[in-house]
Amino acid sequence: MMEDYKQFLILFLLALAVGFGSIAFVLTWVLHYREGLGWDGGAAEFNWHPLLMVIGFIFLQGIAIVVYRLPWTWRCSKQMMKFIHAGLHVLTFILAVISVVAVFDFHNAKNIPNMYSLHSWVGLAAVILYPAQIVMGIAVYLIPATPVYVRAALMPLHIYSGLFIFTSVIAAALMGFTEKLIFSLKSPAYKDSPPEAVLVNVLGLLVIAFGGVVLWIATRPSWKRPKEEITQFVSSSSTRQEDFKTDTAVTTRTHLDLEARRRNGKAEESG
Amino acid sequence: MMEDYKQFLILFLLALAVGFGSIAFVLTWVLHYREGLGWDGGAAEFNWHPLLMVIGFIFLQGIAIVVYRLPWTWRCSKQMMKFIHAGLHVLTFILAVISVVAVFDFHNAKNIPNMYSLHSWVGLAAVILYPAQIVMGIAVYLIPATPVYVRAALMPLHIYSGLFIFTSVIAAALMGFTEKLIFSLKSPAYKDSPPEAVLVNVLGLLVIAFGGVVLWIATRPSWKRPKEEITQFVSSSSTRQEDFKTDTAVTTRTHLDLEARRRNGKAEESG
Repeated sequence: MMEDYKQFLILFLLALAVGFGSIAFVLTWVLHYREGLGWDGGAAEFNWHPLLMVIGFIFLQGIAIVVYRLPWTWRCSKQMMKFIHAGLHVLTFILAVISVVAVFDFHNAKNIPNMYSLHSWVGLAAVILYPAQIVMGIAVYLIPATPVYVRAALMPLHIYSGLFIFTSVIAAALMGFTEKLIFSLKSPAYKDSPPEAVLVNVLGLLVIAFGGVVLWIATRPSWKRPKEEITQFVSSSSTRQEDFKTDTAVTTRTHLDLEARRRNGKAEESG
Repeated sequence: MMEDYKQFLILFLLALAVGFGSIAFVLTWVLHYREGLGWDGGAAEFNWHPLLMVIGFIFLQGIAIVVYRLPWTWRCSKQMMKFIHAGLHVLTFILAVISVVAVFDFHNAKNIPNMYSLHSWVGLAAVILYPAQIVMGIAVYLIPATPVYVRAALMPLHIYSGLFIFTSVIAAALMGFTEKLIFSLKSPAYKDSPPEAVLVNVLGLLVIAFGGVVLWIATRPSWKRPKEEITQFVSSSSTRQEDFKTDTAVTTRTHLDLEARRRNGKAEESG
């Protein structure tokens, strides 16, 4: 258990390191190599686009995805963690919208068409699917009226679509970096590998590494938040299959003390 | 069970449809809009790059990933399926290498630098990690000497790194489409959305859809190939935790008939 906890901690710290690294790199890009930040329809307004996307749609979304896995939150109620999970996603969405407004403003001021590139198609799809995912998540997992069997049935879809959107956002960011480097580097050009090109390429690798660590953490069953319902099946002699199916995972996880478990009330797989 | 099988079949047919759709789109791109195919150091040689990458590194790799999930292969021995899985990956790697040679040849003939773009960094990383994954896979899962506990311990890593490389290849392809459209469309330019730009953007969406369906199929526990060892724990009254942990999954899966199971010999989770 201790070993498992250490492994989790190392990977979570790695996620934070590459995440903050990405933010530092995108800040260096827009402040040192580009025109800084502003809101004037010019390049400085465009620069909010990569900055807010990396901070929000990549970093904050990644943290929101793994927030249930933090062992020190297991004493908090599941309900509170759901609000934090949803809150981080809503904050991310707000930053994404501001970030999209910045690029549309910039395009319109410069008479550059909107929505012609694959980057913009994938990016806008993510910006549209993301609030749909949030609204679905709230309707299914935060509104008390939704029956437990509906919550449980939709959980695999909720997890998959969340990770799919997150991955698509990273892919969109990589296309965005590529576009911007080709369009803005003239002499020396992108192909001449000036320092700015290398910096943004490394930014791309950092963003991929962040995504990779978040996806690893999010898909390790043993790092899941422990279930809230304890049926004590281990001490019983029941051999009913249903018990095995729903409770087995508990036995393989880091044990949360019983007090904390008792404080909560519902089965975890149903959110 | 029948319902589950139907769902699998629909999604697998969807994967084939978008996969073949991607190949049709990339063929249309290089044959109708670009310079066709050739091996002369010119644009026609470059065109092998997107074509072979979509056929191999995207489509064939995706099929190799889900090949164990095809219910009609569950009567074949696990060993044979491993050879098919490994064989498809090796074939994919060969196509990827030819595809990389095509683009290096083209660059060298035109005096364009190699390896300056984020696309090339991510793509080459995938081309290097891929054979490492194949060699590791053969060493751990095809060489009989490797102990079962090593096989089981490395399976989560094998699955994760396989899906990570597959996803990175798709991200690299999307950057490649973006680069190529910007570089090759001049008047009308990419931003003027000529038919070729729309075609390749749709190709990008098809490739993402293919990746999305493959990742969904590959991560559904109920669509796994049934385990080969039957310990009949359901009829026993054992309550030992270890039994639950390793055998529970069987009870939730589509049942393979016992004869087919008996033909095989080892536990599935250990590959």
